[in-house]
Amino acid sequence: MKIHGRETRTLWPAADGSGAVEVIDQTLLPHRVEVVRLTTLAEAVHAIRAMTVRGAPLIGATAAYGLALALREDAADAALDAAAETLRAARPTAVNLAWAVAEVVGAVRPLPPGERHAAAWAKAAQICDEDVAACQAIGQHGLKLIQEAQARRGGNGPVQVLTHCNAGWLATVDWGTAIAPIYAAQAAGIDLHVWVDETRPRNQGASLTAFELGQQGVAHTIIADNVGGHLMQHGQVDLVIVGTDRTTRTGDVANKIGTYLKALAAADNGVPFHVALPGSTIDWSLTDGVAQIPIEQRDPLEVTRITGRDARGELVAVDIAAPGSPAANYGFDVTPARLVTGLITERGLCPATEAGLLSLYPEHA
Amino acid sequence: MKIHGRETRTLWPAADGSGAVEVIDQTLLPHRVEVVRLTTLAEAVHAIRAMTVRGAPLIGATAAYGLALALREDAADAALDAAAETLRAARPTAVNLAWAVAEVVGAVRPLPPGERHAAAWAKAAQICDEDVAACQAIGQHGLKLIQEAQARRGGNGPVQVLTHCNAGWLATVDWGTAIAPIYAAQAAGIDLHVWVDETRPRNQGASLTAFELGQQGVAHTIIADNVGGHLMQHGQVDLVIVGTDRTTRTGDVANKIGTYLKALAAADNGVPFHVALPGSTIDWSLTDGVAQIPIEQRDPLEVTRITGRDARGELVAVDIAAPGSPAANYGFDVTPARLVTGLITERGLCPATEAGLLSLYPEHA
Repeated sequence: MKIHGRETRTLWPAADGSGAVEVIDQTLLPHRVEVVRLTTLAEAVHAIRAMTVRGAPLIGATAAYGLALALREDAADAALDAAAETLRAARPTAVNLAWAVAEVVGAVRPLPPGERHAAAWAKAAQICDEDVAACQAIGQHGLKLIQEAQARRGGNGPVQVLTHCNAGWLATVDWGTAIAPIYAAQAAGIDLHVWVDETRPRNQGASLTAFELGQQGVAHTIIADNVGGHLMQHGQVDLVIVGTDRTTRTGDVANKIGTYLKALAAADNGVPFHVALPGSTIDWSLTDGVAQIPIEQRDPLEVTRITGRDARGELVAVDIAAPGSPAANYGFDVTPARLVTGLITERGLCPATEAGLLSLYPEHA
Repeated sequence: MKIHGRETRTLWPAADGSGAVEVIDQTLLPHRVEVVRLTTLAEAVHAIRAMTVRGAPLIGATAAYGLALALREDAADAALDAAAETLRAARPTAVNLAWAVAEVVGAVRPLPPGERHAAAWAKAAQICDEDVAACQAIGQHGLKLIQEAQARRGGNGPVQVLTHCNAGWLATVDWGTAIAPIYAAQAAGIDLHVWVDETRPRNQGASLTAFELGQQGVAHTIIADNVGGHLMQHGQVDLVIVGTDRTTRTGDVANKIGTYLKALAAADNGVPFHVALPGSTIDWSLTDGVAQIPIEQRDPLEVTRITGRDARGELVAVDIAAPGSPAANYGFDVTPARLVTGLITERGLCPATEAGLLSLYPEHA
């Protein structure tokens, strides 16, 4: 996708042939667009840990390149195992991270050490390309849902899509998951408008989703997370599309905190609620999301301290609560499958049920 | 209630006998506690308009004193009518404002001009005392609901109450509406803990409710508005109590944006959802809140620009979205009566139905 009119991915091999990888520093968005160069395993781990890169697919891609960078220094078995372990520990809750590390380890372990760096590099590039292809496929499958919404509208104003958090191209290598259908609809010439939940406490909607939609020229409006129910009551949302961090084999979805509330409002108002995901986010071992998926609790300061630009354009953190007011910070919630109208995967659309998922992923039957 | 251990109301006649009124400047909370003195009609109007005072009952009380201040300068009929009109226009959506102005006008108009100032002052004091009494009664009636929740818990940890926005003593003259039962429970020695929705975009929960609960020594935790559903899914909320800005005769409630989402989550998880209100917020002319109650749209900058304390303790406004990102700011939403477990009024508890309300307010049958 584009930043300032120039096509870019979120991560790419440095063009100077130095063997480094470059990423967009997402901690500075939307205030500044800066590129960070990763030349060592330690730098890749730091980029994941400090959320320079974020979003499950992009974390996985970064980890794959991180392993390649490690093998450039030392390609022996012990170094390979140690690097894999270090990367897995960088953000232990991200499913794609462990998956991507396992993919690279599996590809290089059978090889002699002298061939491992090149093979890891090639595997990382393949993971990136496959992620892009999966997101494009999600976009094409999800496009049908937006076309259906357009048909229901009958040309009466733009199709109104609501999304929560950032499951856009910034969370992946390119295109995104929940936002991929929106870009596909834009390419297909469909008139549409996106309600962007700001997504407290980290404001990924206001800072990332609104930024990337703006860069791509997609009409959108930032709203407080409290607003979606009111909009749905008044017919101002045609469909909801969100991403997911972890999906059970029964179709429950763990996504950014607050997703469940939007699903409830969609169900109460007859608004279709869809979840976009690559198959790699499905945890086939789980059958009850609310009971089985542990919910990460993060630093309470993320709730009471907010960073933004002051009048001079400087980044400043401000405290919004009284000194000493306690806060709690739950990162995700689980939306039960009964509230999910359907899933959008790289293999097609399906109901949020075990039978639905197995119809697309029969290898997990 | 208390600030820094000292009993105070939100508004009181100046102790020096100057005939002025003093209020707490709520725009500076929780960062600073400053008192503003109102000596003229213009100052009272400014305090309402600039939200130095906010909360429907407190706005009404301030307007009543504002009229008394006006009559001190000029008590002729024309001046009385002009002052009443100016006050009503200060925040036209606040129901209690028009009510309080009408109360004072009705009390003083039959009197000769020379007696009007003193009568208005007495009427304003009476409005304040009646508001305090109504809030105390709401607290005592709501206390029963907290006692029931305590009984359901069977001594297994504190009673967990969730509230949205600020319907506490800062929104009234004293005690509050939704928070009054919490203070009554505290006085009754009940172990309880309050989940405080931060309440975007203006953060009245994080800045006002958390502040007043902290000053009163009530255990509480600030959470993002996105969190309540997750807590209810996991049995961490025993009951929800919120306020209302406008209530239909059928029990629909218009309250701060996002209230509807919490009501949906409460219904989905079998958590009692109660709304506290003085009878003066009931609009007996309305029967369908979603269709009939107009929802105020406010400045989008309230969504994308946030004020807090920087590291030096200075108040700073920061922008969280990309420059030029559009935003929308809906102030309220409507929770249909079917999602409301019950209403807590100064006259007792009742179902959120026309029959329920008429059982307490038969004069509106």
